[in-house]
Amino acid sequence: MERLTVDLGERSYQILIGFAELDQLGANLRALNLANRICLVTNTTVGKLYGGRVKSVLADSGYTVSYYEAPDGEGYKTLQSAAAIYDHMVDAGMERGSAVVALGGGVAGDLAGFVAATYMRGVTLIQVPTTLLAQVDSSVGGKVAVNHPRGKNLIGCFYQPRLVFADLQTLRTLPEREIKAGMAEVIKYGVIWDAKFFAFLEQHLERLLGLAPEVLMEAVRRSCAIKAEIVSRDEYEQGLRGILNFGHTIGHALESLTGYKVYRHGEAVAAGMVAAATVAAHRGMLEAADRERLVSLLRRTGLPVSIPYPDRDILELLPHDKKVRLGKPRFVLPLQIGKVEICDGIENGEILSALAACADH
Amino acid sequence: MERLTVDLGERSYQILIGFAELDQLGANLRALNLANRICLVTNTTVGKLYGGRVKSVLADSGYTVSYYEAPDGEGYKTLQSAAAIYDHMVDAGMERGSAVVALGGGVAGDLAGFVAATYMRGVTLIQVPTTLLAQVDSSVGGKVAVNHPRGKNLIGCFYQPRLVFADLQTLRTLPEREIKAGMAEVIKYGVIWDAKFFAFLEQHLERLLGLAPEVLMEAVRRSCAIKAEIVSRDEYEQGLRGILNFGHTIGHALESLTGYKVYRHGEAVAAGMVAAATVAAHRGMLEAADRERLVSLLRRTGLPVSIPYPDRDILELLPHDKKVRLGKPRFVLPLQIGKVEICDGIENGEILSALAACADH
Repeated sequence: MERLTVDLGERSYQILIGFAELDQLGANLRALNLANRICLVTNTTVGKLYGGRVKSVLADSGYTVSYYEAPDGEGYKTLQSAAAIYDHMVDAGMERGSAVVALGGGVAGDLAGFVAATYMRGVTLIQVPTTLLAQVDSSVGGKVAVNHPRGKNLIGCFYQPRLVFADLQTLRTLPEREIKAGMAEVIKYGVIWDAKFFAFLEQHLERLLGLAPEVLMEAVRRSCAIKAEIVSRDEYEQGLRGILNFGHTIGHALESLTGYKVYRHGEAVAAGMVAAATVAAHRGMLEAADRERLVSLLRRTGLPVSIPYPDRDILELLPHDKKVRLGKPRFVLPLQIGKVEICDGIENGEILSALAACADH
Repeated sequence: MERLTVDLGERSYQILIGFAELDQLGANLRALNLANRICLVTNTTVGKLYGGRVKSVLADSGYTVSYYEAPDGEGYKTLQSAAAIYDHMVDAGMERGSAVVALGGGVAGDLAGFVAATYMRGVTLIQVPTTLLAQVDSSVGGKVAVNHPRGKNLIGCFYQPRLVFADLQTLRTLPEREIKAGMAEVIKYGVIWDAKFFAFLEQHLERLLGLAPEVLMEAVRRSCAIKAEIVSRDEYEQGLRGILNFGHTIGHALESLTGYKVYRHGEAVAAGMVAAATVAAHRGMLEAADRERLVSLLRRTGLPVSIPYPDRDILELLPHDKKVRLGKPRFVLPLQIGKVEICDGIENGEILSALAACADH
């Protein structure tokens, strides 16, 4: 398997990326010297596909495994769901030395991660992401959280896993729409950090969407490497890490406006990246041609590039976004493909004018 | 005011200890360069005594203060109470740069601290402890938590405050029983770390219980200095920090057995320290005379030194204690006044025999 390190001093950990390697999970946990008890947390959908197998793999490696299935969906990423997992873990006799294995997508990882971060003030967390979004983004970097009715990820912690174990073969069972949504975050890494990677995506997009192993491995590896580099330099989002939120200011507002029922997270981020690129282009910070390359790649991927919602409604949702400081929304604006800047002084007028330009493409 | 530093690298902070200095809180926060919004969290009891005054002090220093009173008592240190505070903070527009000021005893500090640790993945936390227990123990060191029906502090984090601000004058409004309960933790520091401090307590106990400012200041200062030293060396309780749990193995079981209705935390710890000292004495690790000095000082303080509950009931509660590893209860055993050792191999027979010896003193 490919091995990357997230360099965070005593909180450093490895990301393992492979293809058809799920059976090696137990052996790789053994190498970490965990205590004997593991709580395997997944959701009903992923549980059906991989739950039994992962449980067996862990049991075969000598672990006592307690299995928990949470309901599937962002709507269940709540404090109530976390409370139910605490209850299960107490019943299962989970101790401070026990580990939580989070098997599934971003919701499962965030929820199980929040529980791991807070059960007995923190137990070992292993991320086994099974969606593209989770493999390239949410499983890496230690952001764990549950939602509050008034804000996504409003209740959470920074809590690093001990290992991220990504088997790309699990993407074969993922709906096409989820692959595309995950691609939004992959494309994001190209825009914020690496023009060559962006060009690689432009060149290999179709094979990537077809899950061809070599290009998929390269895309996930490079995405994780970029995220690991950024997180290593700014674990707690004091500055640099904020660039990972490119596309998320408007993206979160779109998700919230539509009650998390219309957009997958990545889809909202795609539209949000176009909006941010438009703000940047209107300011003269970004060449129109670079904005067009982004729009074009997102469109080829099958991601939304227009924003068919009233701009005033979106604007109203921005101050509730958690990335707001002193009441003014924060944007990550691209300067060129491969380079972005965090900007705090964006005026409402600029946002409205960008949203108007994005109303239809 | 006296100033101590808890040395934790980039998470370092100061403990300020003074007498009749509450009006200086605002100026001391100003020195930290906090953003403008503060959520002041207290309980109904402390709120009546100091809530309005602290709110004014903060407002006079230019902060926009949102005030929240939680119900008073360990029974309200729950995830539900935390959820209510999250709601309040969202309504009050608290942002990532906002701060939580926890005003009150251990419960208020743990609860508000847990909320600060998890609201938007962590906002600034200021501890303003108003009980002896909170001033010498719970406000320092970054342990924050809420209770689970099956275990005290079962849901929590390590999350360091930015400042601990202790005004000893607030102890004047504290019931005598709470002063005595807090003294148990003060005495604990003497046993685990500092024989000279233990002798100081023996010498000045009556003036201390009478809250004479100079001896009180010395006792709180020395207690905080010891805790700061231990926490600095082992923030996440990988080893050394465990000695702070001296008296807590049996202590927690006693609290749990009696539904948190009979013992104040410090009272249970007092009885637990006697039990642990008895285990140590039976093993020949501790001189009988040293055990007697501890029993005598606790008795003079007015703290329980006997355990009038069925030993089998207590034993059964030990495996649910969160300080258990691999199913065996962990004890901190004194070797002499000023020195303890963490022991994992204590057999049930030894515990039963110690409890029998502590049945009445």
